[in-house]
Order: sequence, then C-alpha cells, then structure tokens
Amino acid sequence: MDIDYCRFNGGEKYSYKKFNTKGESKKCNRKKIEKKMVGDALKMRELQDRFYADNQDSILIVFQAMDAAGKDGAIKHVMSGINPQGVRVSSFKQPSAEELSHDYLWRASRALPRKGEIGIFNRSYYEDVLISEVHKLYKNARLPKRCMTKDIISKRYEQISNFEKYLWQNGVTIIKFFLCISKEEQKKRFMSRIVDSSKNWKFSESDLKERSYWDEYMKAYQSAINATASKHAPWYVVPSDKKWYARSFVMSVILETLKKIDPKYPKFQKEKKGKLLEYKKILLSEDN
Amino acid sequence: MDIDYCRFNGGEKYSYKKFNTKGESKKCNRKKIEKKMVGDALKMRELQDRFYADNQDSILIVFQAMDAAGKDGAIKHVMSGINPQGVRVSSFKQPSAEELSHDYLWRASRALPRKGEIGIFNRSYYEDVLISEVHKLYKNARLPKRCMTKDIISKRYEQISNFEKYLWQNGVTIIKFFLCISKEEQKKRFMSRIVDSSKNWKFSESDLKERSYWDEYMKAYQSAINATASKHAPWYVVPSDKKWYARSFVMSVILETLKKIDPKYPKFQKEKKGKLLEYKKILLSEDN
Repeated sequence: MDIDYCRFNGGEKYSYKKFNTKGESKKCNRKKIEKKMVGDALKMRELQDRFYADNQDSILIVFQAMDAAGKDGAIKHVMSGINPQGVRVSSFKQPSAEELSHDYLWRASRALPRKGEIGIFNRSYYEDVLISEVHKLYKNARLPKRCMTKDIISKRYEQISNFEKYLWQNGVTIIKFFLCISKEEQKKRFMSRIVDSSKNWKFSESDLKERSYWDEYMKAYQSAINATASKHAPWYVVPSDKKWYARSFVMSVILETLKKIDPKYPKFQKEKKGKLLEYKKILLSEDN
Repeated sequence: MDIDYCRFNGGEKYSYKKFNTKGESKKCNRKKIEKKMVGDALKMRELQDRFYADNQDSILIVFQAMDAAGKDGAIKHVMSGINPQGVRVSSFKQPSAEELSHDYLWRASRALPRKGEIGIFNRSYYEDVLISEVHKLYKNARLPKRCMTKDIISKRYEQISNFEKYLWQNGVTIIKFFLCISKEEQKKRFMSRIVDSSKNWKFSESDLKERSYWDEYMKAYQSAINATASKHAPWYVVPSDKKWYARSFVMSVILETLKKIDPKYPKFQKEKKGKLLEYKKILLSEDN
C-alpha cells in the first residue's frame, strides 16, 4: 500500500481543499487489503516483541481527527494483536484542574512512552493549537499577561516542534496521524449513531456544535500540520472515508516504522553465555 | 546588595578562572547583612502570599553546586519563613530505574511547579550536562545508536535552552543558582565534616572522588552556564565561600524576582461583591 503520498515531512504542504479523503481506496481491492492486514499484524507482533526486548527506542503515535473519523476504531483494530505490556494508550480529554494548573505540555510529558514501549496518544497536545485556536480558549488561560500575546498559537507551533525534536534526539520515534474524513462522511456516521440504538452512546449534542466549526477546524489542522511537519516527526494525513482503508494505512505506517528501527533481541555477552551453562548444571543437579 | 555583577544572561561570559568566590563579602558588614535578611524574609513572605493567591505565574529555582557549597543550607535558611503550601522542593539524586527508562527531562517535567507555586530543584536536569559530561555517563545511556553522537552534550544544551524558553513563554519564571566555592573552601568544609561527629553523616567517601575531578567540573559548569544563560533563564553564579553572604545573595535575587512579577490578590468582580453582602446577611441572620 502506498503511504508516501500522504506523508508530510516539511517538504510539500498539506492543503485540506485539495486533499481527497477517499485516497486510493477506489483503486484498491478491499478483500485483498484485509487479507494483507492479517499478515501485517503478525509481522508487527513479531517486531514489537523484539522492540520491547531491545529496550532502547520508544515510539510515540499521535492520533488526531474530527469526531467519528475512526480514531478509537483504528487503535482497536491496528493495535489489538500486540502484547499490551509494551503499549500504553493515553486519552487526552478535557484537562483536569491539576493539568490546567501546569504548562500545557505537562500532561503529555508525563505520559511519554518508556524505552521499549509504544505510546499512543488518543488526541494530544495538538488540541492546544486546534480546539484552542478554533474556540480561542487560550484567551481564558490562566497565564501572566506577558504570555498573552497575539502570536500565542504560532509560538506553540514552535514549542511543539522543539519538543518533538528533543524527543527524536532522545530516542523517541514520532508518528502523527490525522484521520481525515469529509464533512459528508461525518454526517453519515453521525446519522448512524443517532439511528442505531447500539451506537447512541457514541453521540453527544456537543458533536453537532463542533461540526458547525468544520471549516475553522480544517484551517487549524492545515496550519498546525504545515507548521509542525518535519523529517523526524512527520504527519500522515490518512484518507479515512473508508475505515478499512484507513486502518490498513495506519498499520502499514507503523509496520514500516518498526522495520526501519530494526529492533534486535539483546545479544548475550560471552562471559554471560558461560554462566548460562553453569545455571543449566545447577538446575540439572536438582534432580539428583 | 548588588546582585547584578554575578548575573549571566547571555551577554558577558562566565569564566571560572576569573571568578572570585568571595565576591564582595569582604566589603560587606556581616551584621548589617543578617539584619537586612530578617526584613527581606518578611517582605518575601508577604509577596509569596500574594503570588500564591494570584495563581497565574510559577517560579522555578534551580540550585546547582559542588559538594558542601551550601545548597541545602541556602534552601533551608532562605525558604523557611515561607508558607510551605506554595513551595515544592524536588531533589534530583541518582535517577531511578523508572526515570532512566525515559528521556532525561522526564523527571524534571513531572516536578514542575503549579501556577502560584515556587518550585525548587535541588540539583536538576543540569546534572545531565555536568556529571554526565565529567564522567562520560552518556556513553552508557540506553539510547539508539543514532542518538549517540559526539555532540550529545552540546545538543543537550540546546534542548535545555528550548525547554527553558518554553517554560518562560508559558508562565514560568526561571532562576538558576550556581553556588560557587573555591577548592580550598571545600577542603575546609570537608575537614569539619570529618572532624565534627555531628556532621559526619554529611560526608561520604564518594565526595573525595568527585573532588578529584574539580577542574573538569569547573569546565563543565562554565560551558553549561555560558550555553544556557539567557534573559528569560539567567544564571546567578553566587560567591559562596561565606555562607551568610551566599544566603543573603540568594534571598535578594528571589525577592527581586517576586517584586518584578508584582503579584496581586485577585480582584473581586462587581457582581460577586454584591453577593458578599448577601452572604453577610445570611450569616448574621443565624443569630436571630
């Protein structure tokens, strides 16, 4: 599956007006893709086992999207086969009082993955340049006056870029997904959440309110993505009108990332190998 | 007390060879200084009360020093008068296994002060460019190969500068103290720790080992200070051969910082003020 055409790493700019939320899904055979995913999942499991044992790198996966774009489904379907001991999902909802009483990266820093871990951010510090920009939430932030400048959002872009550069330089590989659906597709999914009683719980009135800011969100995403896309922290804008396509896309990116890291089971040093024989003798002598 | 001549904020460079660890203590009258400290402590207490109520800014105070330079004593004497509810001291000793399994700024980020709080770092992330540089500890860091570059320490300088800039832009005022003693003064203090049985507990054999790296430490401090001194995160190199002088110096800097922030008790809005009269009535009606 071709993922390159949706990768933004500082070169070509992302334009929400030009972006096709169906991607190449029409060209793809769904059955073939789903079959491929089964194989990919097995490969990913094997690589993650080595990644965990290697205990040197971390991976941070950021998921951002409009409501109903399929974040939760993607996390569930793509990551389910993996040993949960090496995965840590953090959902960033409305910040708590304790979180609000710190700088905005504070809660994200605390949740960073350990070495050998894959950390998944279901929403992230990007909310502080998305919802915060759309609803001008930063105007109510409890900050000294000197910080309440007009360029607060573009300063945050720079802060986030520095933060991600720091992480990359300290062993964290970062992947950022924006699951991108069309406004029509969101309408369809909302309708099914309203009509289908088993899905009612997924719907809330505030979803409609946020939907009314669609264009503002698209602009905020576009400018955040273009300001923070880089080689060491690329954005993948995932065409997500077809769930099967989006999930397979996400899996391909994660698999490619793991392959690039190429984790190895730690090698046993020679002296230690000698010890192993000793241990074997001790265990065997128990039988006498 | 003049503190300007020991402030490094990106202009003039700090040179350990030229620095006088006695500072202006010879010119000062100790009794006068100690009397002034009593007044300063009262002013600081009042300002910190407003600072806590204002609940908008944070202050981060970093203490770095060679052994026996008086970090613990300075924290104790300068901060003792203050309401501990608004102060949080974090001591950064040998990192734990959990801390080592994250990026080096992780443990510092977690310990950052809340709004309205004064956070004190007794040692800090600067250890990662000091002891780490002197003993080349970074060579044993569990990091992917791509991160183990020759310029790892200078990269850290940049990372720390960005981190501090981010904090400043998000409401944290940073003060960094290097309590600077001469090698002779350290010898004297070690001797008294060895001779005086009530001080024995403060001494450990490893202190002597670290002392043998004195020059390497002085160079590491000098280069770290010069690389990370800035207007928004200045370094104060405190002449610390005289404890009373160093403590008064530290207090003057903190007091000046609080004065500059000029915290105010939050104003009550007009509507709320009307409510206050209502509440008064309710309370008074209890007596009938």
